[in-house]
Amino acid sequence: MDSTRVVPAWQSYLRTHQARFIEELRGFLQIPSISALPAHAADVAAAGRWVAQRLERAGLENARVLPTGGHPVVYADWLHAPGKPTVLIYGHFDVQPVEPLDLWTHPPFEPVIEAGRLYARGASDDKGNLLAPITALEALLETEKRLPLNVKFFAEGQEEIGSPQLPEFIQEHKALLACDLVVSADGLQWSPDQPKIDVAYKGMVAMAIDVQGPVADLHSGLYGGMVQNPNHALARILASFHDTSGRVAVKGFYDEVVPPTTAEREQMARVPFDEVELMARLQVDALFGEPGFTSVERGWVRPTLEICGMEGGFQGDGFKGIVPARAAAKISCRLALNQTPSNIVGLIRRHVATLSLPGVEVAITPMEGGIGPYCMPVDHPGVGVAAEVLTELYGTPPHMTRCGGTIPICSLFLESLGVYTVGFSFSLEDENLHGPNEFFRLASLERGQVGYGHLLQRLARAL
Amino acid sequence: MDSTRVVPAWQSYLRTHQARFIEELRGFLQIPSISALPAHAADVAAAGRWVAQRLERAGLENARVLPTGGHPVVYADWLHAPGKPTVLIYGHFDVQPVEPLDLWTHPPFEPVIEAGRLYARGASDDKGNLLAPITALEALLETEKRLPLNVKFFAEGQEEIGSPQLPEFIQEHKALLACDLVVSADGLQWSPDQPKIDVAYKGMVAMAIDVQGPVADLHSGLYGGMVQNPNHALARILASFHDTSGRVAVKGFYDEVVPPTTAEREQMARVPFDEVELMARLQVDALFGEPGFTSVERGWVRPTLEICGMEGGFQGDGFKGIVPARAAAKISCRLALNQTPSNIVGLIRRHVATLSLPGVEVAITPMEGGIGPYCMPVDHPGVGVAAEVLTELYGTPPHMTRCGGTIPICSLFLESLGVYTVGFSFSLEDENLHGPNEFFRLASLERGQVGYGHLLQRLARAL
Repeated sequence: MDSTRVVPAWQSYLRTHQARFIEELRGFLQIPSISALPAHAADVAAAGRWVAQRLERAGLENARVLPTGGHPVVYADWLHAPGKPTVLIYGHFDVQPVEPLDLWTHPPFEPVIEAGRLYARGASDDKGNLLAPITALEALLETEKRLPLNVKFFAEGQEEIGSPQLPEFIQEHKALLACDLVVSADGLQWSPDQPKIDVAYKGMVAMAIDVQGPVADLHSGLYGGMVQNPNHALARILASFHDTSGRVAVKGFYDEVVPPTTAEREQMARVPFDEVELMARLQVDALFGEPGFTSVERGWVRPTLEICGMEGGFQGDGFKGIVPARAAAKISCRLALNQTPSNIVGLIRRHVATLSLPGVEVAITPMEGGIGPYCMPVDHPGVGVAAEVLTELYGTPPHMTRCGGTIPICSLFLESLGVYTVGFSFSLEDENLHGPNEFFRLASLERGQVGYGHLLQRLARAL
Repeated sequence: MDSTRVVPAWQSYLRTHQARFIEELRGFLQIPSISALPAHAADVAAAGRWVAQRLERAGLENARVLPTGGHPVVYADWLHAPGKPTVLIYGHFDVQPVEPLDLWTHPPFEPVIEAGRLYARGASDDKGNLLAPITALEALLETEKRLPLNVKFFAEGQEEIGSPQLPEFIQEHKALLACDLVVSADGLQWSPDQPKIDVAYKGMVAMAIDVQGPVADLHSGLYGGMVQNPNHALARILASFHDTSGRVAVKGFYDEVVPPTTAEREQMARVPFDEVELMARLQVDALFGEPGFTSVERGWVRPTLEICGMEGGFQGDGFKGIVPARAAAKISCRLALNQTPSNIVGLIRRHVATLSLPGVEVAITPMEGGIGPYCMPVDHPGVGVAAEVLTELYGTPPHMTRCGGTIPICSLFLESLGVYTVGFSFSLEDENLHGPNEFFRLASLERGQVGYGHLLQRLARAL
């Protein structure tokens, strides 16, 4: 780094106002905007209003909360750079549920800062990341009175449930959202010292499996052994989804998958990945997955089927001697190129139908918002500019990576508006995204703010 | 029936005071004496005090609540019939948990009478049955000032959790509980019009299975497919307990079982059992169980393994994309002659150890109170007297039956005191024992009261 370089005014502005930005983030994090829980719908809407007001304060125009058939979205823009490209910045203001609550060391919606880390549900995914570009825009507008290119800001309140109403909303608002590139403020960096750029995300389709047996819970002594126990039937269904090696055993599951090329496998093998460190961090004595692939390949390019939740019968302390009336599970499949949600649902339905389960009824219900996988060219100019900025921020070039997570909006924008999405966000894998004790490094907030300032200036020239 | 027969004074007393007895039962049922839940320990104790006070009011002596290492027991006696036999009447004042609460049409501890049925948790199992002999004793003592034989009354507060402290208590109180016969006020009749006498109960041993995977819930996109999902491991364990035909697949599970003799199978085949009615009542389209045995045989003489509860990961509304840190199940085995709880736990441990489950730790913890199976001779004089009384009460002789349920005290009294237990109680299978909307027919209370009066008078001559 050139220590003699003059710090631009917008960067000084960010430093001067950083304490206020952190306090704002704490307020944002106090809103329990859990999109998965209908009881929190009003909180999701409140978080949307918070974002719209914050964008207006930053100097953007036309800031407003827009309804969808479900949780709302937020839009704002600044379009006074004629002849310049238009970038749409994306993020989300909804968060995951907080169960199991007893494992949180602090209440999840009472943000606490400890040793440079801000603990709260949504701190890392995605409220901290969302605030970074907003404050960067504010700094540019306050100090330069203009932006170097046209900016649209679009945030949603349903990312954590798979963005079920987004496809229709985007279809109906193509002109409003039209742009040359999307920059996503949702995603991860590689490590505190190493940047990355994700050029692919897996798709996702989630399903509920419900098994109905007898009309009511039965005494396990009087009826046990005489009727099909829904727990037994569900365990058989769930166990049948994988063989003992860890490979998905649903017939046809892998048929559509585009296998990685030799070059891609070599490139993935070069990315540093420490299995010993991962096992130590997760406190497991072995990693486990589809045979024939490395952990990186399993995570980045191979589809998965995970049982995210299951329940049946008595689950309290102590014991209750029953054959339960019903049992249920929720599964999700992460999809690799070229799998589609509808095909996977069909394969799972056919697979379960082949199991003989007398005495129970099994229903498989896809949850809303199935999303196809996403991939963009590594040589796209947006990727090149992001790589330049990240190289300067970290002092080392980014890894070109794929991600096992799902950012529905990437697939949706490509399908509906024909534009690619470049990830530009600063969460880290150890920040307990989706789990108890989620946190965000305050250093990442600063890095993100400065990064967005540089990114917008360079995109103005490159696109 | 001989309509000219004079109704004895004790029967008239029962009729006169029946409204009071029902009000007393409603009060008893308002005590949420759920033995499985530590939070309800004080309620179990309160129910014990209620029983002790009620026995004293009935005219019994030495009524008291006695401590155990867990939930208490209640004892009372009337021992003024020298030269006459001593009968110990047994019942329990604890109840099952009430989940799922949303399926109850009335709050479970706010008793409601509708169409001759008293709805409340514990109405049928076992508080209604427990009150029948108490009121019969009161009627005899109030009208005749004496009992025809010596009576000890013994009620416990831990039947629904397998009576974990009873073995030690009985061992330490052999003299207090010494008797010639136990009569159990816990159990079922065949139908409203048909009595039965159970001459055997299955044993039971319950176990908790806990599967621990990663240290915290993980994002199913970032980590799915790379680590063993505890839900997958638990599903594999649970599914492995049975083959697809319904037979228990745990190696050695059936080795100790005494198979029914040809004569016993013929006798069981003669007991009327309507599979179509059962399917209609339970609303299932098929019965299901161990091949090679009838439903009656499965229920009465074949051991079972049932998953009473299982849970893992997200179980709320909506969806959460996680690989959970842990999953858990509770299973129970109902034991046939000559299985033992300790052997079955060992077999299940060995079975699970044969499964290869890298990346998770599995713990199997037997719950307290494993109980061996129980069987008594059909030609025991206590059975003969009970059969005479039931024949008069119902106008038809009882079926001689076995029961898939477990009444731990039967095995305990036989092992510790060398006495058999005759079941004499009046619940019916459709009364939702252990499930939502449990109820007790008030007609059964009346029948039980009269039955106990006759039973005690005849046992005085027969034993």
